Amino acid sequence: MTKFMDVHHGMKGITADQLQQAHQADLEIEAEEGVHFEGAWADPESGTVFCLSEGPSAAAVQRIHERTGHKADEIHAIPLSA
Amino acid sequence: MTKFMDVHHGMKGITADQLQQAHQADLEIEAEEGVHFEGAWADPESGTVFCLSEGPSAAAVQRIHERTGHKADEIHAIPLSA
Repeated sequence: MTKFMDVHHGMKGITADQLQQAHQADLEIEAEEGVHFEGAWADPESGTVFCLSEGPSAAAVQRIHERTGHKADEIHAIPLSA
Repeated sequence: MTKFMDVHHGMKGITADQLQQAHQADLEIEAEEGVHFEGAWADPESGTVFCLSEGPSAAAVQRIHERTGHKADEIHAIPLSA
């Protein structure tokens, strides 16, 4: 299992409810790909959303995001943490 | 206090030790700006580092990073989390 940070652009004006709903949708199906989303953070001003996850591959993370309607623009494997 | 996610580019090949040392340097002086760095994650392949912090302003976060020699390329206020 690897950790991933994915980044979504173009989300200007995202609300707390929208972020919560998107994250909840991911949580509901994440197990089907062996992924777990640990957290999501949004900057509504620049329209940037960051999601921290753990899973078998970036493709698995992306499949969950695609199925819930919010494909990531970048998915970074982050094997190093401090 | 606000949460921030900052992003550093151009860190290709960063090692676990380098990430740890950079994070430790931030932790050692963060209190002088009322900032706390909660975590740092690195993608050595694309050369991207993400730092999650809490503090009074993006400028305060940047001052710590500048003093420790690794100015952030982006600092996002992330008032929303899930």
